[in-house]
Amino acid sequence: MTEKLSETARTTTLDPLLEEGWTLDENRDAIMKTFKFKDFTEAFGFMTRAAIWAEKWNHHPEWSNVYNTVNVTLTTHDVDGLSALDVKLARKFDGLAGEG
Amino acid sequence: MTEKLSETARTTTLDPLLEEGWTLDENRDAIMKTFKFKDFTEAFGFMTRAAIWAEKWNHHPEWSNVYNTVNVTLTTHDVDGLSALDVKLARKFDGLAGEG
Repeated sequence: MTEKLSETARTTTLDPLLEEGWTLDENRDAIMKTFKFKDFTEAFGFMTRAAIWAEKWNHHPEWSNVYNTVNVTLTTHDVDGLSALDVKLARKFDGLAGEG
Repeated sequence: MTEKLSETARTTTLDPLLEEGWTLDENRDAIMKTFKFKDFTEAFGFMTRAAIWAEKWNHHPEWSNVYNTVNVTLTTHDVDGLSALDVKLARKFDGLAGEG
């Protein structure tokens, strides 16, 4: 069962992500990051690998792409806020992008 | 050499796209369309095929994805507006999505 991150979990799991370039959305309980790549194929290659993990974990990003840039927003609609799934996917995305 | 669409070309090539669900951006010379799919894998499958054509033609969309929905915006930065490349890519995207 997915649950909203507890205050303790926010400190222990979100803070390290904020140090890796993720930011908190000002308008809702979500985290965002902009990933920059060399070109479109690198950016879309990242998205393709990320998409497979998102589907595998049944947790999907809101994201946009313009050429070499990918903007990702993660939140958990079921709990109307951040859950452990967002943290897990954020870490995976950082790994796939060679960051974090 | 890529050129901005002439007035004549706008009538002959844009009008059919507007009938297929593309709309003109109110803020700049660009066309936009929302594609809906059954689920994430169908949406991302469309994006993957579209990405290959975009790269092949060296003309890339601005696009976003949330689960089964893909929002596409096409414009040509080099000419600061719509060119024949946008029309070509729009038609291809419609074809890949099984529309148009």
